[in-house]
Amino acid sequence: MCSTNFRKTPSASASPLQTREPATAHTSIARQPPNFYAMATPAARTNCKVILAGTIAKGLLAEVADGLSKLAEKPKLVGFLANEDPAAHMYADWSAKTCRENGFDFDLRVVSKADIEESILSANNDPTIHGIIVYYPIYPATSRQDSYIQQLVSLSKDVEGLTHRYVFNMYQNIRFLDPPKNEQKSILPCTPLAVVKVLEYLQIYNSILPYGNRLFGKTITVINRSEVVGRPLAALLANDGAKVYSVDLDGVQMFTRGQGITKYHHEVHPQDPSFKLENCLPLSDVVISGVPGKTYKVDTNLIRDGAVCINFSSDKNFDSDAVKQKASIYVPAIGKVTIAVLLRNLLRLVQNQKASAVVAADQEVAGQREG
Amino acid sequence: MCSTNFRKTPSASASPLQTREPATAHTSIARQPPNFYAMATPAARTNCKVILAGTIAKGLLAEVADGLSKLAEKPKLVGFLANEDPAAHMYADWSAKTCRENGFDFDLRVVSKADIEESILSANNDPTIHGIIVYYPIYPATSRQDSYIQQLVSLSKDVEGLTHRYVFNMYQNIRFLDPPKNEQKSILPCTPLAVVKVLEYLQIYNSILPYGNRLFGKTITVINRSEVVGRPLAALLANDGAKVYSVDLDGVQMFTRGQGITKYHHEVHPQDPSFKLENCLPLSDVVISGVPGKTYKVDTNLIRDGAVCINFSSDKNFDSDAVKQKASIYVPAIGKVTIAVLLRNLLRLVQNQKASAVVAADQEVAGQREG
Repeated sequence: MCSTNFRKTPSASASPLQTREPATAHTSIARQPPNFYAMATPAARTNCKVILAGTIAKGLLAEVADGLSKLAEKPKLVGFLANEDPAAHMYADWSAKTCRENGFDFDLRVVSKADIEESILSANNDPTIHGIIVYYPIYPATSRQDSYIQQLVSLSKDVEGLTHRYVFNMYQNIRFLDPPKNEQKSILPCTPLAVVKVLEYLQIYNSILPYGNRLFGKTITVINRSEVVGRPLAALLANDGAKVYSVDLDGVQMFTRGQGITKYHHEVHPQDPSFKLENCLPLSDVVISGVPGKTYKVDTNLIRDGAVCINFSSDKNFDSDAVKQKASIYVPAIGKVTIAVLLRNLLRLVQNQKASAVVAADQEVAGQREG
Repeated sequence: MCSTNFRKTPSASASPLQTREPATAHTSIARQPPNFYAMATPAARTNCKVILAGTIAKGLLAEVADGLSKLAEKPKLVGFLANEDPAAHMYADWSAKTCRENGFDFDLRVVSKADIEESILSANNDPTIHGIIVYYPIYPATSRQDSYIQQLVSLSKDVEGLTHRYVFNMYQNIRFLDPPKNEQKSILPCTPLAVVKVLEYLQIYNSILPYGNRLFGKTITVINRSEVVGRPLAALLANDGAKVYSVDLDGVQMFTRGQGITKYHHEVHPQDPSFKLENCLPLSDVVISGVPGKTYKVDTNLIRDGAVCINFSSDKNFDSDAVKQKASIYVPAIGKVTIAVLLRNLLRLVQNQKASAVVAADQEVAGQREG
């Protein structure tokens, strides 16, 4: 059975920097007259459009560059590394490189587990630091200590959107920090937001519909319900109007704003245990998978002809050749979009910090007048 | 049963000018915070986006105006009216008005049935006439004489795309008249092409996918399989990659290019008689209905939540209030798009005539050189 073919996804797998681009480029063959096919090899005979994360990231990076050009100072991101995982080191190096390439400062601080709390608090109070990223896991997944550390990061510097207020806003579909002015957007977690940006690029979000409802009518399966990626992703997509089947080892849950999406934010409906992944796939316009492990593959036979398939695992959850015979669009990895979103979040933090500073200054001036 | 709730659609109903705009404007309510709903009336509480044909036609008319500005002379359309149907007179008047408003000449010629053949042949040979439209029906639907008259119109002046070569090209998915140069596009029938233009505007066509495959992954039900609208429409949509359920009194047929849309043009698969409209509707992303008659209504309960619903009948095939509780997008009529497409076809004929004249002149010059 498909739904028992993967292990529960640990939050460890979900760092925004932990999805990699495939080493090889993919090509898509546009429809050609029949005589073209006679010349082509059978493997090339597919109408699946393969879209690489680098292509999708370009627009986001251009948006970031534009925002950056309007700032007086170069924003600085600080990364805290408090584990010995060589993969985490590699991702830290990658984020450093991408930050610098795109005009941001990056400072990697390798600290001991004992020092992580003090180090974060100190960075919170350092006005030269604009964003903080912590490389998880620090403590074993069975411990909840990483959740405690997530709450230590200042709201104004939490580039990953992992502190409670951001998470609460996301689940409650509250999009701004400063209602009713609505000038400061709430920060969304990088990997789920990267998937949203991928779906926008692919025009699965229909911009004819009003903002906030643009997935109305779409059925989406998300395989992975981790606290850090899968569950927030299902919530985000349902808040935008989709009917989402969230699938993990402990069953299927449907996230939806109800018929006619009349509810303001999503509700979660656990499905009967007999309703499994293999029941979700044939109903889904979009299949999004993020299961860690080399052995897990989505059963391509069950995917709807012409579905859109997106992999956000660092492992390949789709059989590449098979999925191209079925899908209309296949996105094999999203890592480069995730890091573009990280930079976009950092820029947004800087903009919010400036707006807050203006508000604080206004209040101070008002206080002096009243005093 | 739904599928026996409408009568076989006569070709008479399918003149491109025979769908009207609704008299009243519709509004769409974007998603609002919950307290907004408390103030709104229950009827207004819908997330369905209603889009009027006039809005969709604007872009097409702008495209036509741009093409027109590059021509030395004003193109002339001649309409032949050989029946006493007051509705046909009204539509002829409407086409005259729209032509003139958009910078085209229009000449309505009221002729007797006995004179229609000679009149068309004479217009074919008149170099001041660029396009010909005939208002059908002239003869009773049981007679095939109207089909004979359709073949009389010169290929270079057939603004409705009803002559055999255009119809053949459409079914065979041949998009140009002059392969391999591919500079002269084949003419498509106005109402089916208008539906395509509506679907493009609504972004159901995904422009991320290659031209010709942009409906890949979409399931569409078309209710009406008349020779003039329903069947060509199903073929066009399937040729563009959709899986189409074509529904009429004599059953359901599936039009498709097969799994992975690997076939170059669609094939038609008659469905088992037990598979009816009520089986198609829950599977369909898009429901397109063109059934004549005031009594016919699509059963809204069977429509997928968030589906796109389009009416091309001059009667309202959807219960307006009910469909807005279910659909993500509702297009209540397409008449204004159809007439914009008619003008676009006329412009294309003029462009093709100019290109052909250049080719003919080249050949003549070449002939003189060789002679």
